[in-house]
Amino acid sequence: MISVEEARGRILAGLRPTGAETVALAEGWGRVLAAAVVARLTQPPADVSAMDGYALRSEDAREGGMLRVIGAAPAGHPYQGRIGPGEAIRIFTGGLLPPGADTILLQEDAEVLDGQVRMREAPRKGRWIREAGLDFRTGDVLLTPGRRLSARDIGLAAASNHAWLTVHRAPRIAILATGDEIVLPGEPVPAGGIVSSNAHALAALVRAGGGAPLILPIAGDDREAIGRAAVDAARVCDILVTTGGASVGEHDLIQPALEPHGFRLDFWKIAMRPGKPLIWGHLAGTPLLGLPGNPVSAIVCALLFLWPATMVLSGLPAAAPPFRMAMLADDLPANDRREDYMRADLSRDGEGRLIAQAASRQDSSMLRTLSASGGLLRRPPHTPALQAGAMVEVLVLDEFGI
Amino acid sequence: MISVEEARGRILAGLRPTGAETVALAEGWGRVLAAAVVARLTQPPADVSAMDGYALRSEDAREGGMLRVIGAAPAGHPYQGRIGPGEAIRIFTGGLLPPGADTILLQEDAEVLDGQVRMREAPRKGRWIREAGLDFRTGDVLLTPGRRLSARDIGLAAASNHAWLTVHRAPRIAILATGDEIVLPGEPVPAGGIVSSNAHALAALVRAGGGAPLILPIAGDDREAIGRAAVDAARVCDILVTTGGASVGEHDLIQPALEPHGFRLDFWKIAMRPGKPLIWGHLAGTPLLGLPGNPVSAIVCALLFLWPATMVLSGLPAAAPPFRMAMLADDLPANDRREDYMRADLSRDGEGRLIAQAASRQDSSMLRTLSASGGLLRRPPHTPALQAGAMVEVLVLDEFGI
Repeated sequence: MISVEEARGRILAGLRPTGAETVALAEGWGRVLAAAVVARLTQPPADVSAMDGYALRSEDAREGGMLRVIGAAPAGHPYQGRIGPGEAIRIFTGGLLPPGADTILLQEDAEVLDGQVRMREAPRKGRWIREAGLDFRTGDVLLTPGRRLSARDIGLAAASNHAWLTVHRAPRIAILATGDEIVLPGEPVPAGGIVSSNAHALAALVRAGGGAPLILPIAGDDREAIGRAAVDAARVCDILVTTGGASVGEHDLIQPALEPHGFRLDFWKIAMRPGKPLIWGHLAGTPLLGLPGNPVSAIVCALLFLWPATMVLSGLPAAAPPFRMAMLADDLPANDRREDYMRADLSRDGEGRLIAQAASRQDSSMLRTLSASGGLLRRPPHTPALQAGAMVEVLVLDEFGI
Repeated sequence: MISVEEARGRILAGLRPTGAETVALAEGWGRVLAAAVVARLTQPPADVSAMDGYALRSEDAREGGMLRVIGAAPAGHPYQGRIGPGEAIRIFTGGLLPPGADTILLQEDAEVLDGQVRMREAPRKGRWIREAGLDFRTGDVLLTPGRRLSARDIGLAAASNHAWLTVHRAPRIAILATGDEIVLPGEPVPAGGIVSSNAHALAALVRAGGGAPLILPIAGDDREAIGRAAVDAARVCDILVTTGGASVGEHDLIQPALEPHGFRLDFWKIAMRPGKPLIWGHLAGTPLLGLPGNPVSAIVCALLFLWPATMVLSGLPAAAPPFRMAMLADDLPANDRREDYMRADLSRDGEGRLIAQAASRQDSSMLRTLSASGGLLRRPPHTPALQAGAMVEVLVLDEFGI
């Protein structure tokens, strides 16, 4: 058995980001940039007014002074001329300052009199002017590769004149659920059968992480069928995930099914709970993650291993999922040598601090408890007993959308 | 001018969740449930083994005792018979306990001898058995309306035998950018022109919030064109958003363009920075939000007003976006009567606490600063000067994907 940390390290070390694809700006949100966004223009392109008012020469700026209004410069309609002594133009937010002008008189400080304006206050040179390039200049690197694009990044890419973006291809994750006992949701359930939930929960988890899931037809407990489906899928995906049959009992068929196809096993046992039996290796050069069949084990292991793997494939740094600190609501007994991930309710106290209350029963078949739990409480191996009020690490499940 | 709080309250008070639609289970992730998910079966359907081992009668459980193995029950293949005295069947994780059996002997505690097993330890009645209905029972309400579906919820819906889900229709948000000076990204930019970024940033924000954006063609500074486009869009969307022209200068055309079409204004001025001019009203019964044209103002106002509006339309509760507490990195001067949202870098100190450092220049045209800032630091009206180390409220932009 290896530790959770070592397992994650070995999984992530062998992964490389997917190649790039070109997407329309509108499709770029949430994708990871594969090529820098470099400004194609200078913004603003020249000095512009930050307010509605009048543009003038600073030499003419004095309280009580009069200016002749010789034209106007709304945004998008630059004034075609030069401001001379004693002259001003009407200007609006975003309007270009015409040559000669270096000062803005706010409209609330201007008294308009028959084609002229009187300055109620002396405007200050340069005030209310956005200088050329205030936001960015042609050639500036605005967004660097490896960044997950936010809505504001999409705005910045647009403003710098990009209609297309170069992003990493969404990692394609194939999911193969195995087992004679499982059937698709909504289909007739035979005696002793259960409805397949893992593939669907994992597909949603992959989507939440920005990947593209591919749900394969269920494979029964049949070595040849599992082997064939796995080899076919390995050709077209970035990671192949199996669920069920990950242990070495006589009905655990993943390893025996893959061996004839040249499967190279890296490890298959992790000192954790839930989810001890977990396979990692390569099938025809494609990474293969064999998750346990218990629904809670499958989802917890997917968050700990598949989520970070999806991040690396997407072009993001290799890292554990981010833990938060929370305060224990109840005492907890000492932990054994397996790292424990306990389902826990999360709440916040009056000061906004996270409080974690472990569910009273942690059986790994209890999916409903996982759905109702806001967090997973991490207990490292051999942790001593803890009293209520102690600080613990939690994964806040809603942060991941899983 | 009204306060941010009052503005948000007036916006949200008039909104109702969208109607329901039926989506395939695989499309349910991230959607908001409109009808409860009720279990269609009991899980597990009968008592099942939680481990690989042997199923027997508790009456026969004693250290050193011998049992005759009369069959097997792998998951999905129930044993067709009854366990009698001195008998056991081989059982596997998830396998149904046959009638008569109430005790599991773990395989590591069993010595196999020619069709028989010897108990190395006396197994305990009921241990390693998952009782029928441990996870849920037919008719249990597993997921309630108004819940944004996580990956684990999708798993639970699948496990309880649902192939379809009833969710709120994604709110359709139409976005109309206005202004003679703006052009689409990638198209030729005339002198004095700027590239339209607001519509694209807002569309990404809408997607991040689970809505369906509709980017309308840009309308120039032409009352008739704006009015026509707005009336057309109002027919087919849940909220119509305009950007630019929200003030009352002579080139601010939104209100004059909408008035002939029966626009009912609620308010148009908020005591905040950036983003004072903001229109809220109804056009032909459709809510209309007029955002300012400055890119930073548009995005900040969208997070404060359009985001919560999208949540309410989606079927979620009316609420402000969630603020976090952060520690100030530098002193801040006192604030005036406008509520201030300052772009700020966010980092974490050694103890995991958020640290916020306000950007040195806060001009609302500086989109690059917004893209580079992890947070928005809220300064309520009339806040006194604060020293480094004081606690402030921040919106963590990455939490929203915006």
